[in-house]
Amino acid sequence: MEETLELARERHADHPQLPLALRLIENTGVRTRHIVQPIEETLKHPGFEDRNKLYEAEAKARVPAVIQRALDDAEVLPTDIDVIIYVSCTGFMMPSLTAWLINEMGFDSTTRQIPIAQLGCAAGGAAINRAHDFCTAYPEANALIVACEFCSLCYQPTDIGIGSLLSNGLFGDGIAAAVVRGRGGTGVTLERNGSYLIPKTEEWIMYDVKATGFHFLLDKRVPATMEPLAPALVRLARDHGWDATDLDFYIVHAGGPRILDDLSKFLQVEPHAFRFSRATLTEYGNIASAVVLDALRRLFDEGGAPERARGLLAGFGPGITAEMSLGRWGTADKKQGVRRT
Amino acid sequence: MEETLELARERHADHPQLPLALRLIENTGVRTRHIVQPIEETLKHPGFEDRNKLYEAEAKARVPAVIQRALDDAEVLPTDIDVIIYVSCTGFMMPSLTAWLINEMGFDSTTRQIPIAQLGCAAGGAAINRAHDFCTAYPEANALIVACEFCSLCYQPTDIGIGSLLSNGLFGDGIAAAVVRGRGGTGVTLERNGSYLIPKTEEWIMYDVKATGFHFLLDKRVPATMEPLAPALVRLARDHGWDATDLDFYIVHAGGPRILDDLSKFLQVEPHAFRFSRATLTEYGNIASAVVLDALRRLFDEGGAPERARGLLAGFGPGITAEMSLGRWGTADKKQGVRRT
Repeated sequence: MEETLELARERHADHPQLPLALRLIENTGVRTRHIVQPIEETLKHPGFEDRNKLYEAEAKARVPAVIQRALDDAEVLPTDIDVIIYVSCTGFMMPSLTAWLINEMGFDSTTRQIPIAQLGCAAGGAAINRAHDFCTAYPEANALIVACEFCSLCYQPTDIGIGSLLSNGLFGDGIAAAVVRGRGGTGVTLERNGSYLIPKTEEWIMYDVKATGFHFLLDKRVPATMEPLAPALVRLARDHGWDATDLDFYIVHAGGPRILDDLSKFLQVEPHAFRFSRATLTEYGNIASAVVLDALRRLFDEGGAPERARGLLAGFGPGITAEMSLGRWGTADKKQGVRRT
Repeated sequence: MEETLELARERHADHPQLPLALRLIENTGVRTRHIVQPIEETLKHPGFEDRNKLYEAEAKARVPAVIQRALDDAEVLPTDIDVIIYVSCTGFMMPSLTAWLINEMGFDSTTRQIPIAQLGCAAGGAAINRAHDFCTAYPEANALIVACEFCSLCYQPTDIGIGSLLSNGLFGDGIAAAVVRGRGGTGVTLERNGSYLIPKTEEWIMYDVKATGFHFLLDKRVPATMEPLAPALVRLARDHGWDATDLDFYIVHAGGPRILDDLSKFLQVEPHAFRFSRATLTEYGNIASAVVLDALRRLFDEGGAPERARGLLAGFGPGITAEMSLGRWGTADKKQGVRRT
């Protein structure tokens, strides 16, 4: 945080709205962030082509170990995976990294590939939901979710609007992976999912695509979107016979501090319930689609939840879209054969 | 075809491999193509930013009518649609066009969005397969598939390798849409789907992402890929108790003439079986992910197939990936209530 504020002061000393930008950055509560390159390199713009090559190189260097950890934690082998859902909006490759991963990590040649580049921060929730759908269709299947976001590679030195300065102080880099097993395993047993688009807001979070790459545009109305989104969370829970204000755990996208404060307010849930998301924001910044998976990891690290505890997961992003799901905590019973053979 | 050959002779008069390029283009068998702009504009490169804005404007101007036709043909309303699968690799928007479509065309705010930009020509098959998966998970659901490809907006004047010259003579623009209904309707009742990645070929079809946009790279080994892919089609059919050499209809991606010739050879199926795909190639060129949907339209135009006739659908694209499915022709029985209420 201190480095970020210092950099902002240096680079934008003449900016008429510098004090506002500094205040907004301070208010994010982001204490530390991780970025794939040293800060000096990050602040340069070597061109879209080099940026994108860097995205590819860093993804290839870093993603396999994260996936391996997820496979190990879920006690499955690469050959147990039926679909790879790869979400990433901070670099663009065709084919997506899925093809390389299948070749490199020994996934079956018949593994389905679902690469999603256009759901931004909502893509973590979308990946969970599409994995849930897939395992609902094929209950014996296993889905691998990978979120790879190098937001620092979308830093645009020429964008000096207040939304850009705030974004520069908010977003971080991160990779996360998780396995959604059709049967067995420990974690959230997904029961229902849904999506909600706030009408007429498709230009509130968007990329301006230019020769210099993706330019992130953030409308100042975005932080207030939990007011129209909270009712969608309440409705999804109600359709499931649950009360969204009274669940046992909440794993939501920490887009910024206001998102969490407002969710607490509009869902009438104590702030402590969002401690996992808050910790992700504080320690990593907004790592886009990877936030929900990292927040979920923190629930695991805390020892999980009581058996059959009810929870909500939600990603929020461009559209403006919420990708939401409901599930219960479940612990594997080793005797029932958690390990697929 | 005549215009394309003439243009190639004019623009590449000094190219040492011009005769080879002309022969390759002639061999595609593409007689006509449709492009979103006049040829003079298409041959200019106004920069990635303007190209992408053009993609967005043309998509917004043209896609809704195509979707409306698909909804009407399937006898469903926008509010009957549960998921929109939008596939397109020739422009990039975040959010994808799905958000705009939901707002513009009256789809429910709860409609799921699955935008896929990184499966190229295989994405038409992938869209069918993901729609099938979704309706398998939720049998009352309906999926809308949209393929929007403006390949002409990826024309790169500075790419003069033989693969690029061939591509310039092969690809066309097209939009297609289809509804996959969970219940009822007339068309192919999907029964099984699968994916296959040919090992170690992820660089054979790819985009080089540059400040000038997407540069399509086509390895000269691509046209021969039906030899390793045909066995995957045979295996999928065999797993379903079917014989891939003896089906009633074939709807496959017409990447080029060799693809169709080789499929005929390796599956031991008469060339006439691929008449739908051949007609798409001849009249529209390779319209990427839209090919399979257009070829399927031609089967409808021919009056469909006998009740319970067995068929295969397959898209081929970067990875190198095949997205395959098997199904039977079914005609709606009006008395059983095709129309959802």
